[in-house]
Amino acid sequence: MSKKGEIMKLKIGIVGYGNLGKQAEKILIESNHQLVAIFSRRENIKSEFGTKIEKYQNAPNYKDKIDVMLMCGGSKNDIMKQSAEMLNFFNIIDSFDTHDKIQQHKQNLEKISNISKKSAIYSCGWDPGLFSLIRIFETAFLDQPKVYTFWGKGVSQGHSDALRQIDGVEDAIQYTIPASRHIQKIRTDYDFVPQKNEMHIRECFVAIKKGANKKQIEQQIKNMENYFKGQEVQIHFVKKELIEKLKKRMYHAGQIIGSGKDMSAQIRFYVKMKSNPTFTANIMTKYINAIKHLPFGVYSVADIAPKYLLEDYESLL
Amino acid sequence: MSKKGEIMKLKIGIVGYGNLGKQAEKILIESNHQLVAIFSRRENIKSEFGTKIEKYQNAPNYKDKIDVMLMCGGSKNDIMKQSAEMLNFFNIIDSFDTHDKIQQHKQNLEKISNISKKSAIYSCGWDPGLFSLIRIFETAFLDQPKVYTFWGKGVSQGHSDALRQIDGVEDAIQYTIPASRHIQKIRTDYDFVPQKNEMHIRECFVAIKKGANKKQIEQQIKNMENYFKGQEVQIHFVKKELIEKLKKRMYHAGQIIGSGKDMSAQIRFYVKMKSNPTFTANIMTKYINAIKHLPFGVYSVADIAPKYLLEDYESLL
Repeated sequence: MSKKGEIMKLKIGIVGYGNLGKQAEKILIESNHQLVAIFSRRENIKSEFGTKIEKYQNAPNYKDKIDVMLMCGGSKNDIMKQSAEMLNFFNIIDSFDTHDKIQQHKQNLEKISNISKKSAIYSCGWDPGLFSLIRIFETAFLDQPKVYTFWGKGVSQGHSDALRQIDGVEDAIQYTIPASRHIQKIRTDYDFVPQKNEMHIRECFVAIKKGANKKQIEQQIKNMENYFKGQEVQIHFVKKELIEKLKKRMYHAGQIIGSGKDMSAQIRFYVKMKSNPTFTANIMTKYINAIKHLPFGVYSVADIAPKYLLEDYESLL
Repeated sequence: MSKKGEIMKLKIGIVGYGNLGKQAEKILIESNHQLVAIFSRRENIKSEFGTKIEKYQNAPNYKDKIDVMLMCGGSKNDIMKQSAEMLNFFNIIDSFDTHDKIQQHKQNLEKISNISKKSAIYSCGWDPGLFSLIRIFETAFLDQPKVYTFWGKGVSQGHSDALRQIDGVEDAIQYTIPASRHIQKIRTDYDFVPQKNEMHIRECFVAIKKGANKKQIEQQIKNMENYFKGQEVQIHFVKKELIEKLKKRMYHAGQIIGSGKDMSAQIRFYVKMKSNPTFTANIMTKYINAIKHLPFGVYSVADIAPKYLLEDYESLL
């Protein structure tokens, strides 16, 4: 363990070549690290930067040629499995974001890390990740803390997927919008406790198939348990071309507001980003450096001293 | 080193019984830790909670009776000396806030820690401290980051002291106010670089001695190098009774705004507090728990994994 946060040149691989993987590639090419290859299960893909593309199953051949693997698959179907598989051979960093399964994911990784003696940094994006850190600080430093997280305005992949599974829906996208009246109230009233289902507005853009019943689809959306029921839902029926267009805009935002008893203190943290995958990739790539400083093991961002993020952190104290 | 952030009951001492020491006492009495004694150089002071008050020079007698000493003297005259002295016998936590001297302070402490085998956490308040962490995260995670810190509205002890040293001034207090036009501009324009001396407004409340020359004092204030010269200064001549009153109000605030290139992302962190010493004491006391988890050494907040702040940090990931 080195005491200072020197930046070392490392050999990096990327697993998954969707939006996140492409942004990670861009960042790594401009970084001090060496991007060795991108691993994908898809065939016939090409890197516009000329990065070597390899089949997912060939990754073990790179065991001695890659120091850290950035896991850029989707949390829904890929990451739990892929991070575990790759941890047999490589140090890995992922941004697994299914909050309910984070502890299960961690425990899986720990079993593998104990055998492979490789390290994992899990759930290392903006939320979970940066936002986890801020929630910890707000909760720790405020007296009898009340800490609330709001997301948006930005696309929720999970809610968009849920819309697409409705019969008669051709394509859909869902924007999560923080309820500004609640944010205003939380800022001024310590005793106000917002209902969880009132904290966000769900704006849905839906393209339906020919002959589908709008009224019926609207009812199905509004009554969908765990996703929309009991929440403020706005539904716009639009052409699928508009949805294609909206899908290309990947801005997002979020905020965490914490107050101490009787408003003794308040901490507000706000982030907005033009591209969700770019910001996530920025965070993941910054944690590469931490890997080399830590004894092998499985780490959340909370387990890592912030000094490992920057060489010149002392000038920022 | 324990892996989880369990909260252990520790025996604590406080050095210094001004505003900060008094707030630390209040927090510790309601905490799981045991407050053993308060050490002061002043005579005839009493604790309203009945805490034992000891002479500063008797602290070494408590070598085996106190685990962690909270250093609550002033940064200007006390902390560099007192933290070093106490580190010979105890683990210490201070909130030393003279930014220019932080590295010198750290190096002093390291020499002592190497011999005494005790730990120090230095500069562990809200700025430096919490704000240091946020500056590190904003700088690390934003692309080509521009990160600015604004303080206030709140009292600057250093600037108030400077006013009091002017001939003819009986008492004075200075409020630092962030220049809101600059904050607005930073939020929207990545390329805007504010001049350091334009970032804050200096509001001075000054009580003068009988027969003193207002015009002359005003000129002296406005021309004082390093404190007021070149900055927007507002001067109010008031009665000393008003200043006495203002001194009792200890609210403060601060914010850090960071932007990535071409506004690719923006992070805003804002804190306001009713009592500056209370918020500082909240942070210092939370870091007590970290001491027991770390091998002996000298630590800034950046050197400490955030998990040590809270027992149940995993639920906040």
